[in-house]
Amino acid sequence: MSTPEQQTQHEKLMLHALSLASRGPITGGNPQVGCVLVDAAGEIVAEGWHRGAGTPHAEVDALTKLTASKLGGAATGQSAAGLTAIVTLEPCNHQGRTGPCSEALIAAGVTRVVYAVSDPGKRSGGGSERLRDAGVEVIGGIAAAEAEEFLHSWLSATRLQRPHVTVKWASSLDGRSAAADGTSQWITGTAARQHVHEQRARADAIVVGTGTVLADDPSLTARGDGGELLERQPQPVVLGRREIPVGAQLRHHPAQLRQFDGSDLNAALAELFEAGIRRIFVEGGPTIASAFITAGLADELLIYLAPKLLGGPKVALSELGVSTIAEAKDLSITELRPLGNDVLIVARPATGAPFAQSATGTVVATPATETGA
Amino acid sequence: MSTPEQQTQHEKLMLHALSLASRGPITGGNPQVGCVLVDAAGEIVAEGWHRGAGTPHAEVDALTKLTASKLGGAATGQSAAGLTAIVTLEPCNHQGRTGPCSEALIAAGVTRVVYAVSDPGKRSGGGSERLRDAGVEVIGGIAAAEAEEFLHSWLSATRLQRPHVTVKWASSLDGRSAAADGTSQWITGTAARQHVHEQRARADAIVVGTGTVLADDPSLTARGDGGELLERQPQPVVLGRREIPVGAQLRHHPAQLRQFDGSDLNAALAELFEAGIRRIFVEGGPTIASAFITAGLADELLIYLAPKLLGGPKVALSELGVSTIAEAKDLSITELRPLGNDVLIVARPATGAPFAQSATGTVVATPATETGA
Repeated sequence: MSTPEQQTQHEKLMLHALSLASRGPITGGNPQVGCVLVDAAGEIVAEGWHRGAGTPHAEVDALTKLTASKLGGAATGQSAAGLTAIVTLEPCNHQGRTGPCSEALIAAGVTRVVYAVSDPGKRSGGGSERLRDAGVEVIGGIAAAEAEEFLHSWLSATRLQRPHVTVKWASSLDGRSAAADGTSQWITGTAARQHVHEQRARADAIVVGTGTVLADDPSLTARGDGGELLERQPQPVVLGRREIPVGAQLRHHPAQLRQFDGSDLNAALAELFEAGIRRIFVEGGPTIASAFITAGLADELLIYLAPKLLGGPKVALSELGVSTIAEAKDLSITELRPLGNDVLIVARPATGAPFAQSATGTVVATPATETGA
Repeated sequence: MSTPEQQTQHEKLMLHALSLASRGPITGGNPQVGCVLVDAAGEIVAEGWHRGAGTPHAEVDALTKLTASKLGGAATGQSAAGLTAIVTLEPCNHQGRTGPCSEALIAAGVTRVVYAVSDPGKRSGGGSERLRDAGVEVIGGIAAAEAEEFLHSWLSATRLQRPHVTVKWASSLDGRSAAADGTSQWITGTAARQHVHEQRARADAIVVGTGTVLADDPSLTARGDGGELLERQPQPVVLGRREIPVGAQLRHHPAQLRQFDGSDLNAALAELFEAGIRRIFVEGGPTIASAFITAGLADELLIYLAPKLLGGPKVALSELGVSTIAEAKDLSITELRPLGNDVLIVARPATGAPFAQSATGTVVATPATETGA
């Protein structure tokens, strides 16, 4: 049990731990996690965050810093006695490339562990039970809404056991992605295009169809304002049976190209998840975007609307299997703003909409806290 | 010539005159105009505004109130001697149902007239010249941008000699106005639907195609929150050759129904203008909306986007005659905001876009001040 004052203090410290977590990389198989260790007076004595697969978890990173802190001296043993660990995700309970955090916290002698969201991982979960068994006080659910939102894509991938899927398209205000002759460069302005590059850099893989590869010969790299390659490059994934031409720009992509025949999106997603891919960015075109949405595999939509009208046959989305208005794919808009002269709309399947599915086709309810405002 | 201090004072008074102007009706053939009379010390001694065709113009309304004011006494003659008239539109110079305002101001003996925008009317313009000839100091262009925006639709109609045309549609985020089977009720929520009713009440006529009449049997009335009829009802106008069924709801509309065969939009608009209609609200469906846009006759677009995806064949706009991206109909977005769960986008043809045409097919440049932010 904690007092209202303690809870307020824990929430404040948790938001700070989330800001530490954000220093780690969003891409890759591991979640961004932050941790602070505080003494009985509520003073922060150490901070830690996870820097990516193979490096210490946030809790261990913070414990390591204790030896250099004002409480230091004994580098081992009960150096954390009397301390509270505030950690954004339930401490893991399994031996991966690094040891279980629950054991490290017990060994260090922390008195209390406060976390935001439970670890939904099959192998990594169960840390809070292990801690309680060892006599450590455990409080979960502090600043849970903020942490759920912060870890949205990782939690979604872990819960659904498939990568989190963002489907992106750019269209005119009347929903066309190109003019009648197929021309579309540039339908949106530079601010929107730069935003796309930033989203690419936040994904583990970019997915396009062979149609897009053959028509547009895209490079699918994440580039900065000046056209330079960004440090993180997502893996290019092509869906479809047609062969990618030898001279295609994609073949010069810094990351390894993968191709699936596209007949089974669930199987492709399962294989990408198995390979450690947690976030994919689907860049279309219309056939691929529509296929993901129709299959209930689009977790987030990024829609760039250009202040233009085009009319004609080149719609940004084609068929979605909606035959009557009651079957419409209902969304909640989580972001709406101007982006240069264009408009950015970010949306997710509406809460309760039978629209977000796991790789095995099971409908998974989206937690209310994940849907944003 | 006026000093910078005078100009600042004039601008402030002009904004007040604009707020008076907004008390008058937006519908009908006459513009909304406001006027304040100020003494040499800059104190307001009388206010006036126009209440609709056949009633006194704003200047005369203000002058009338002088008799009851602190300067009153002499109800006729040089009662306004020494006063400045601040008026939102250049005083008219013609005898209509009421006399020319320029003559009334001269007769009252005002010393100075300050106005915001020139009267583009063929018969009513020229007031400032008449005033100057009579020895009245005249300053134009004060708070012109605000007044241009305020009078946007009336100025546009007067300049183009055809009604100002607002084209409205509601669609899913992927640009569909209905599901594959044609169902669309309700694609948008109550806030968006109420907004449509308010826009109807601001128009002199609502335009639909016979397709919409036969498919939806709309009443096309402007109703309030509780479903009650609003005081102002726009005239229903139907485009197309097919006969409107005897039992159609439109036949019970409080205003007189008009029908055009739809083959010549310019001729229909010219006839409506001649009948005193200055603002029309085009409610589609897709064929009619697309025809107005293709013909360059859409001055403003009201797009209601619902947080849904539909896919399929029922696009909100059909063909616009755009064959390649360089021919896209470029817009400037003047308003972007959530409306309930939906999104409202208001847009106009981009400045310089060859898109706004007069009834005779002449391209008319849109003044920069009219396009908003």
